[in-house]
Amino acid sequence: MASLKSWFSIPSGSHFSLANIPFGVISTPSSKTPRVAVAIGEHALDLEAFAANNGFLGLSTIQPHQAVFSQPSLNAFAALGRPIHSVVRKYIQTVFSEETTYPDVLKNNAVLQKQVLIPLKDIKAHLPFKIGDYTDFFVGLNHAYNCGVIFRGAQNALNPNYKHLPVGYHGRASSIVPSGTPIRRPNGQILLDPTAEKKVPTFSPCKKLDFELELGAFVCGSNEQGVPIPVDQAAANLFGVVLMNDWSARDVQAWESTPLGPFNAKNFGTTISTWVVLADALEPFKTKGIDNDMEILPYLREKEEKTVYDINLEVNLKTSSGNTATVTKTNARHLLWSFPQMLAHHTITGCPFQPGDLLGSGTISGTSPAEFGSLLEQSSNGKISIVVGDSEKRTFLEDGDQVTIRGVCGTDDQSLVGFGDCVGRIEPALTLGFA
Amino acid sequence: MASLKSWFSIPSGSHFSLANIPFGVISTPSSKTPRVAVAIGEHALDLEAFAANNGFLGLSTIQPHQAVFSQPSLNAFAALGRPIHSVVRKYIQTVFSEETTYPDVLKNNAVLQKQVLIPLKDIKAHLPFKIGDYTDFFVGLNHAYNCGVIFRGAQNALNPNYKHLPVGYHGRASSIVPSGTPIRRPNGQILLDPTAEKKVPTFSPCKKLDFELELGAFVCGSNEQGVPIPVDQAAANLFGVVLMNDWSARDVQAWESTPLGPFNAKNFGTTISTWVVLADALEPFKTKGIDNDMEILPYLREKEEKTVYDINLEVNLKTSSGNTATVTKTNARHLLWSFPQMLAHHTITGCPFQPGDLLGSGTISGTSPAEFGSLLEQSSNGKISIVVGDSEKRTFLEDGDQVTIRGVCGTDDQSLVGFGDCVGRIEPALTLGFA
Repeated sequence: MASLKSWFSIPSGSHFSLANIPFGVISTPSSKTPRVAVAIGEHALDLEAFAANNGFLGLSTIQPHQAVFSQPSLNAFAALGRPIHSVVRKYIQTVFSEETTYPDVLKNNAVLQKQVLIPLKDIKAHLPFKIGDYTDFFVGLNHAYNCGVIFRGAQNALNPNYKHLPVGYHGRASSIVPSGTPIRRPNGQILLDPTAEKKVPTFSPCKKLDFELELGAFVCGSNEQGVPIPVDQAAANLFGVVLMNDWSARDVQAWESTPLGPFNAKNFGTTISTWVVLADALEPFKTKGIDNDMEILPYLREKEEKTVYDINLEVNLKTSSGNTATVTKTNARHLLWSFPQMLAHHTITGCPFQPGDLLGSGTISGTSPAEFGSLLEQSSNGKISIVVGDSEKRTFLEDGDQVTIRGVCGTDDQSLVGFGDCVGRIEPALTLGFA
Repeated sequence: MASLKSWFSIPSGSHFSLANIPFGVISTPSSKTPRVAVAIGEHALDLEAFAANNGFLGLSTIQPHQAVFSQPSLNAFAALGRPIHSVVRKYIQTVFSEETTYPDVLKNNAVLQKQVLIPLKDIKAHLPFKIGDYTDFFVGLNHAYNCGVIFRGAQNALNPNYKHLPVGYHGRASSIVPSGTPIRRPNGQILLDPTAEKKVPTFSPCKKLDFELELGAFVCGSNEQGVPIPVDQAAANLFGVVLMNDWSARDVQAWESTPLGPFNAKNFGTTISTWVVLADALEPFKTKGIDNDMEILPYLREKEEKTVYDINLEVNLKTSSGNTATVTKTNARHLLWSFPQMLAHHTITGCPFQPGDLLGSGTISGTSPAEFGSLLEQSSNGKISIVVGDSEKRTFLEDGDQVTIRGVCGTDDQSLVGFGDCVGRIEPALTLGFA
């Protein structure tokens, strides 16, 4: 795709090129009420202020709905539906393009530029959605396989259901935080010696704190309870994508998860990037996921071949002593099921969705260790150390460690479609007087 | 406890005696905006109208907060905290008592009575809370044991963690519906022959549709992410209790649940009773739960012995041909862990709670088959039929079956503390063109 040129200064290599236009929710020190914005280069375009100043003069479709930009979340904007997201994005691209059809809206209006374009360093980015329900899937096949090998051996690595349905579990919506929020190491019950005959847990700060490299997809549609969303209509119900770090307490998880699945091991915090990249912006980067060698049921069959995204992903670790390492380099194509398939499966029972519901992909891992999306896999559950900097070693995360996930589509530095950072730093566990 | 006498007609045997005063959200054909009410005998007291007409004249504490009664949910009222719930309940008891201190508020004001007291048959009862997050526990030990015997045999019936922590999983908040909402039989993947070597699922309407007899507790407090709620402060964060039917698709569950727990088997609908019985109203019915023969960790130890409730529970089944049976008679004391323990465990990692979050107890079963709180247990997973009426038989639920859960505390017909009905009727599965 040829890059769109802008009259506005967008640095080369920016995640937020004109080809992107991701949506978020911001506030500023001088205007603390959260409202909707898009990111462009190193600036946020405040859409509440833009709309209030006739910025959408050239787009009559959005005018009756402009109140959505004054909301403290993207839920109302998302609920307008993908055709509206599409025209709003395209209009903003037009307003910013070098040969804009609307030069007087912003290009030739320095006063308005000053009012509505805020340097990203001066804004606070909030959680983009009020999240009703959050579901985390497990459709990164390589990750599922690696975990299976660690806990059950290579013969039984994948359960019999794995290739027939997108395995998932309901997560804790309240625990999702925007990039930058510190993550406190959780306390909990852990079994120090899993091989002991008498299994008596110890109360302790988590000793196997991990990250998980995931994508999250926000839903914009809704369905009546009892009525599924067919797989070929599912994409129309997906707003856009964020990066996600599903922090995991592996020792808590090992002890608690049988028979009802992960619970406290996952509910202390999940970090998402704050700028939601629209499904439209990701459309050119659609690719084929992992081949499924099983015949799948008709309700999960997609017409298109390319239904996952070619997003280059990496995880960077920075320790409190300043050492850094790129722990993971992989790609979002390593998924067995697409978000439309996840949504179709999730609703096949009639489970109701609302705009703002979130689907997590599950950990994304490639096939070699340097592509593994969690320390559980990289360290083989604590057996192998990875090196950070010259000599610092890690099996799991230490206090003060900062994990940054980055993701970007494309290779032309003028037209990258990226996600910004998804970052969190580990704070020490609380010492509890009562425990 | 001596019964409170009222000047108002409350039928003997009513679940909503003056000793109760449960809270809910109602609308009427002439006033369709949902607002807060309490149930008294066969009437709802519309608290929005009551407050607007100086009903709370004698309770200055609530006056600055009266807007909470105009909300479409109990979230704002609940957030005021238990001391406020307590004084509001007591004030309403006083207003309705035979020798009321405030005769002019309602007793001697026939005009206002007509305005604010609405027959329950004329109201619509809504979901009482906007539910942020919903967690379902599994702390009915007899149920957990029975399920364990069915699926793993008596030797391994309970997992090693069971007596050390309240086992639970995150549920789907959007799927919770108020009593009376029809429940559509879900479609899904089921494994017709689990013993076959090649495990290939079939797409089908659920063939093993079940009820689960549970209690639900609504949270009124909140905690900062990262900061646990200690067990001895947990009760102060619990608003009240409802009956819950956690409808379950047992065949879907059997196929999907390894390794991440139940998912689609549980997310098509969970029914709750619409009147929330305050923790205060249940206080006199506190009792001791099931003895735990394990030494539990300090963060789960309660000072009080009596921390569960003595609630007589029953499940009634009515088939479409009109046959009826009381399928289950048991008591809510059959729990290994209390709601305060569930909340303390859930937050020990720092998982954040908000008013309106819901905790389910898990299925409550006594020790004999007639006390089992699910058909899975009663039918031993489809092996034994139960008889409904003279000769109709059931292993699991058929289309048109109506399940009603009832629960009541006390034996004096003048002062029962009951929950009203928690009822749902099974509609046939949708035939899907795309599946």
